[in-house]
Amino acid sequence: MMTDRSCNEFLDILASSAPVPGGGGASAMVGALGMALGSMVGNLTLGKKKYEQFQEDIKVILKEADVLQKDLFALIDEDARVFEPLSKAYGLPKNTEEEKSKRDEIMESALRLACSVPVKIMEKAMEAIKLHEEIAVKGTRIAISDVGVGVLFCKSALLGASLNVFINTKLMKDKQYAGDINSMTEKLIEEGIKRADTVYNEVERMLKD
Amino acid sequence: MMTDRSCNEFLDILASSAPVPGGGGASAMVGALGMALGSMVGNLTLGKKKYEQFQEDIKVILKEADVLQKDLFALIDEDARVFEPLSKAYGLPKNTEEEKSKRDEIMESALRLACSVPVKIMEKAMEAIKLHEEIAVKGTRIAISDVGVGVLFCKSALLGASLNVFINTKLMKDKQYAGDINSMTEKLIEEGIKRADTVYNEVERMLKD
Repeated sequence: MMTDRSCNEFLDILASSAPVPGGGGASAMVGALGMALGSMVGNLTLGKKKYEQFQEDIKVILKEADVLQKDLFALIDEDARVFEPLSKAYGLPKNTEEEKSKRDEIMESALRLACSVPVKIMEKAMEAIKLHEEIAVKGTRIAISDVGVGVLFCKSALLGASLNVFINTKLMKDKQYAGDINSMTEKLIEEGIKRADTVYNEVERMLKD
Repeated sequence: MMTDRSCNEFLDILASSAPVPGGGGASAMVGALGMALGSMVGNLTLGKKKYEQFQEDIKVILKEADVLQKDLFALIDEDARVFEPLSKAYGLPKNTEEEKSKRDEIMESALRLACSVPVKIMEKAMEAIKLHEEIAVKGTRIAISDVGVGVLFCKSALLGASLNVFINTKLMKDKQYAGDINSMTEKLIEEGIKRADTVYNEVERMLKD
């Protein structure tokens, strides 16, 4: 498991020419880092009299954030797992027409599988962005910069994962299927940027005021 | 040392109410992840006949990228170290005029110190963005999405660190000093966004073409 390693080992394997982890797994990690920052703000708000009215909400947010952080972290290993068949498909022979046709078929389903985890990373990153919208309202002002950094990282996870969708759909023969995935991805990008930037810009404005 | 821990432990401490690591250390980590992705693309280009003309350049890039990744990673612990005096200054008594004045003085120098590491993270992230500009031109096309994700994370590190500059300069009494740091930070943000977005948008265009 990639995720049992130390931060330093993880970075070194990422930097190497090993096929995994790559941009997908790294995006999941950045999403988990973003959600962890949101949790930190929640934890700093717990038990604070000034935020008495939000205590119950903060407890719910913290539970959801913990699940999201763990889900995103688990997607690092899942991304590595679904990349393996694609990595193998690339190596299949393509000398005869029969081999080519067989390879195309295996490749197509390997591409669909390899796409599935970046899509999941995007969905989880979107949920994490939505939680930050609530943390920005109910979390302690003392850690407002961390809300901004947290939501920025969740947006980066969403965008980073989207590039890992596009690199797979680009190679698909089934253009209808690829187009559908791309449309869904574009929608998630548009909504995610809009939501995350609203929180980030508000934080930046408060800090520079 | 925070950086000896496993990825999972790091995330859990980040999510906790412990004063460090916070948004600054997390930004350094995201910068290191971004630079590691750039190195991965370099390593995948090494020895490839198609990129024969860039082999010597790639070797130089890889050396610089390795130093930057390690520098950014080391800034996680350095950020924790410079935050400690500020954390202590907050706890100083402010009952009498004398105590207040003493506290203000200690606070001011603690804020300057706490600002210094986010500024360093921004500078290193900018260097990492510049290396990605070169990797986008000379690196293997097979990993083009990773160049996009890498530069996106370096930009996020730069922006995340900037919020940690602003939260400190906001509290400084010396408005001249704070204004100078803010101006420099704004310049780094403007240049970094422009450079990183150019690389990212070009990668996205290629993937969606």
